[in-house]
Amino acid sequence: VLEMPNKKDVSTAVVHRLARYYRCLLDMKNRGVGRVSSKILAEVMGLTASQIRQDLNCFGGFGQQGYGYNVDNLIHEIAVILNLDKGHTAVVVGAGNLGHALLNNFNFARAGVRVAGAFDTDPKLIGTVVGGVTIRAIGELEPFVQSYRPDIAVLTLPRIHAVPVAELLCQAGIRGFWNFTSADLSLPSITVPVENVHFSESLMTLSYRL
Amino acid sequence: VLEMPNKKDVSTAVVHRLARYYRCLLDMKNRGVGRVSSKILAEVMGLTASQIRQDLNCFGGFGQQGYGYNVDNLIHEIAVILNLDKGHTAVVVGAGNLGHALLNNFNFARAGVRVAGAFDTDPKLIGTVVGGVTIRAIGELEPFVQSYRPDIAVLTLPRIHAVPVAELLCQAGIRGFWNFTSADLSLPSITVPVENVHFSESLMTLSYRL
Repeated sequence: VLEMPNKKDVSTAVVHRLARYYRCLLDMKNRGVGRVSSKILAEVMGLTASQIRQDLNCFGGFGQQGYGYNVDNLIHEIAVILNLDKGHTAVVVGAGNLGHALLNNFNFARAGVRVAGAFDTDPKLIGTVVGGVTIRAIGELEPFVQSYRPDIAVLTLPRIHAVPVAELLCQAGIRGFWNFTSADLSLPSITVPVENVHFSESLMTLSYRL
Repeated sequence: VLEMPNKKDVSTAVVHRLARYYRCLLDMKNRGVGRVSSKILAEVMGLTASQIRQDLNCFGGFGQQGYGYNVDNLIHEIAVILNLDKGHTAVVVGAGNLGHALLNNFNFARAGVRVAGAFDTDPKLIGTVVGGVTIRAIGELEPFVQSYRPDIAVLTLPRIHAVPVAELLCQAGIRGFWNFTSADLSLPSITVPVENVHFSESLMTLSYRL
């Protein structure tokens, strides 16, 4: 039996690719695909088959030579590696246009995350329900985090408020930030992981390809 | 004089890293940094100094041993490589919450892109101005693209409309798609580059790190 590597040993690039595998495999499953070769997965993902075998062998190698990967099994194994089976919960901080777009359209459940609450300063928004989640006053955020211990704060608030709110949430016990603002949270006062969403990088990649 | 490699020779991973370098270097420039070593750039980006030297040497190597990179020069050279100096124009297709969020808050100019128009089906939105751009009726999209030849279509419309609208835009002469919908545009009828924005991959990466 091969051992799963220590979490610390897996590079960021591999983790990003695992997330891409997961998304592609879910799409395949939804189209009724039950088994996939590394060759086909490579074509879909724009990688080489040997890269894929190397990545998946990192985690014990779920494939069989000449037989391919069982899609369901692979989805399950990657979910375990990425902690998608942990029942993580999130609060959405800022229910403006971007917060609304995420609450209404983003499939948090597909990434294994449940939205436990959403918060805004706008009195017109407080009390309304967006994507099944009631918007609460920002003043309730800190006691909510202390009481319910959500794992993730989704930062969709104005950039200028991002740092003080993130510091407050760290103190209150949040475990990680999904940061949609352009604020830089790599500060000594922010002691938990931050995943920044940088739209501009993907737009620049497209520019290159035009 | 070292030659710039053919565009086809540069891997997607390198292009993504160049976009990250560009963003980090702009931040440094804004903080008044004029020169940076590969060691410091490596620390900021979470890469190794040798990875950075290898990436930048791909394009002729702008650094000097023991002296570092001139931030302004490097920004300029990367902009040229990524086509950020080409004056690309874009249309935003769909001015709902996500379209609004991008028009109001995303710095298109920083990625070298100018928004030439935005389009929606909602009569309440048509004629309003969002982020300095007037929202037009979706019926005007095809003639607008044929007349003004924008390079990029930003797809922030409902998923179910993404494929037919993208096919129409291809026919009308669009050169690339920045796709925020979860629709799969890897179809024979879509003959131009597509850059998909997959929020879920970044959320899953965060889950791993919690």
